[in-house]
Amino acid sequence: MSAESIPAAVAERVKLVILDVDGVLTDAGVYMGEDAEGRSIELKRFDIQDGLGVKMLMWGGLDVAIVSGRVSAATAIRARELGVEECHQEPDAHKLKVVEKLLERKGVAWDQVAMVADDIPDLAVLKRVGLKAVVANATEPVIRVADWQSTRHGGRGAVREFCDALLQARGDLERIVDEYVEDRSRT
Amino acid sequence: MSAESIPAAVAERVKLVILDVDGVLTDAGVYMGEDAEGRSIELKRFDIQDGLGVKMLMWGGLDVAIVSGRVSAATAIRARELGVEECHQEPDAHKLKVVEKLLERKGVAWDQVAMVADDIPDLAVLKRVGLKAVVANATEPVIRVADWQSTRHGGRGAVREFCDALLQARGDLERIVDEYVEDRSRT
Amino acid sequence: MSAESIPAAVAERVKLVILDVDGVLTDAGVYMGEDAEGRSIELKRFDIQDGLGVKMLMWGGLDVAIVSGRVSAATAIRARELGVEECHQEPDAHKLKVVEKLLERKGVAWDQVAMVADDIPDLAVLKRVGLKAVVANATEPVIRVADWQSTRHGGRGAVREFCDALLQARGDLERIVDEYVEDRSRT
Amino acid sequence: MSAESIPAAVAERVKLVILDVDGVLTDAGVYMGEDAEGRSIELKRFDIQDGLGVKMLMWGGLDVAIVSGRVSAATAIRARELGVEECHQEPDAHKLKVVEKLLERKGVAWDQVAMVADDIPDLAVLKRVGLKAVVANATEPVIRVADWQSTRHGGRGAVREFCDALLQARGDLERIVDEYVEDRSRT
Repeated sequence: MSAESIPAAVAERVKLVILDVDGVLTDAGVYMGEDAEGRSIELKRFDIQDGLGVKMLMWGGLDVAIVSGRVSAATAIRARELGVEECHQEPDAHKLKVVEKLLERKGVAWDQVAMVADDIPDLAVLKRVGLKAVVANATEPVIRVADWQSTRHGGRGAVREFCDALLQARGDLERIVDEYVEDRSRT
Repeated sequence: MSAESIPAAVAERVKLVILDVDGVLTDAGVYMGEDAEGRSIELKRFDIQDGLGVKMLMWGGLDVAIVSGRVSAATAIRARELGVEECHQEPDAHKLKVVEKLLERKGVAWDQVAMVADDIPDLAVLKRVGLKAVVANATEPVIRVADWQSTRHGGRGAVREFCDALLQARGDLERIVDEYVEDRSRT
Repeated sequence: MSAESIPAAVAERVKLVILDVDGVLTDAGVYMGEDAEGRSIELKRFDIQDGLGVKMLMWGGLDVAIVSGRVSAATAIRARELGVEECHQEPDAHKLKVVEKLLERKGVAWDQVAMVADDIPDLAVLKRVGLKAVVANATEPVIRVADWQSTRHGGRGAVREFCDALLQARGDLERIVDEYVEDRSRT
Repeated sequence: MSAESIPAAVAERVKLVILDVDGVLTDAGVYMGEDAEGRSIELKRFDIQDGLGVKMLMWGGLDVAIVSGRVSAATAIRARELGVEECHQEPDAHKLKVVEKLLERKGVAWDQVAMVADDIPDLAVLKRVGLKAVVANATEPVIRVADWQSTRHGGRGAVREFCDALLQARGDLERIVDEYVEDRSRT
């Protein structure tokens, strides 16, 4: 598959989209430091165009989960803003267990899951899902198993590119954009 | 239209320039996190060259408004520094209503408005304005309706590029730069 | 002049190097926001390789001044770290007056000054100096008067590139690097 | 040597990897500023993919040390998160002394050391080590002595690229990745 299309049959099966955080919803950067009183600060850079893509998935009837292998307040803040209730941060990247429980709870099968990933902490989950998407900046072992790769980098529109491609393949993109713009055209 | 010129007739009609924030005055990035006491922090990255462009528009007799579809203290801080009094932040991107009121209040018609936009939250307004400008990093549905696209990305000089192009098309750029430099040459 | 060499005669005359801040010592980005208690925060991104370049100028016997057209605590912090005592921040970019006083106080003539600039707030000073250097991301009116343009962007090594080129043209670069490394080779 | 391979004989000798911070574990950027109460803040941007590379080195039985020529709380925070106990920050870049003591304490010879470097503060140490690696954004005098140069910039995957290349040359990369993924595949 190219970055330009996802087969309709694969796309239509998807019920749940799992997003990694560092390298996917961000460009893998983490801003660390302290203020003058020695209190540590940590920031991550998220992308507003990506955020709208995530919302479009949910308007298209898809479930979205954020699953990170590192704990950071930034991730929880961003998930809350996007309205993503399933936000899981697993220290040391033990992601499979939490995803298995999530699928059980949601009644979703592995081939109904899409994941957007960038690195080997994602591999245990990525290998099992029905649609394996990776970002332009993914590492080699992850690219090797991918069905689809974005042309844009994580944190720089890769997630939006995936959302657009997935909704396009499901035949939903134009309708969602039209409804969104129509709603904002009411005064 | 290319990124290099705006027709003089279109440019001369403009009385008000509306700027989006995320993706236009910024590169769509938002820096989120917490300090050690759990207080959340949010930063946006603005561009100083863009800021001078905004001021040049105002020196050229144009009105400038900032209209964002997301609420952030960063936007208000930046608008204040630039001297842009019309700074509107509409949660959930309901921008049309506020812009209609603004036009009424200012006595400005739709074809006297230019807008710089990047994404579908801008479309309801963008479609109505006389000069539809979009940034290099705009999404497809927005590029499709554009009259003019910058070569530079939002937050990386796109707004300055637009300001220069608009003032050039109005025949005002050289005069404004000369007056600015002359004023700073007094000692 | 190309980005690769500065004429020895011009370089040898230089006694004082004036550096702009936004767009020169930074990539023109300014990070703005608030913490949860509504206290505003402003950060700028400086470059460590640039910083060493500034120190090399001073080791080479040159005076260095930072002259900004905008007031920011970040600039003062960075100047202090670099050991640059002449750090002037002039609101609304009235730079010429402060530079004239500086030259008088130092007993330096205009043709003994080099400046690294990016935008029209620098022009009143830039036009008068002996060596007019601009960064890759400089705006058109500034590029037009330049003697030398860096290949690297402001905040991304442009200042270091200038420092290396100036010291090279003066025949001092190799000696300064060698002495620096030799000093760090003592145990 | 190219960016793609490190000779097995050189790689197999390595027992200790020394990483510089600014320009190597970061893109040389330092974010400086103040909050509204005048308390200074300093942040650095680290890369999560790099961080996993550092951990992979340690899983591969290699010692890792971070040696910076500038003191910053950000560096200490990042070292702690990565589990790198040997984190040394030497004001004014006097690195050789601390590295000599480190080698003595660890019982490691110079030709058993690899270093990833970007600028002349690294040279006194870099010249002595068995494997001299530099990042894409390294300065000329450092590139001149390098055995290996990454294609990626510091803070943007350069360290991960080095870690992958070193472990590949030692014949350990595939095994470490497989074990990591296998461990995360247990539920």
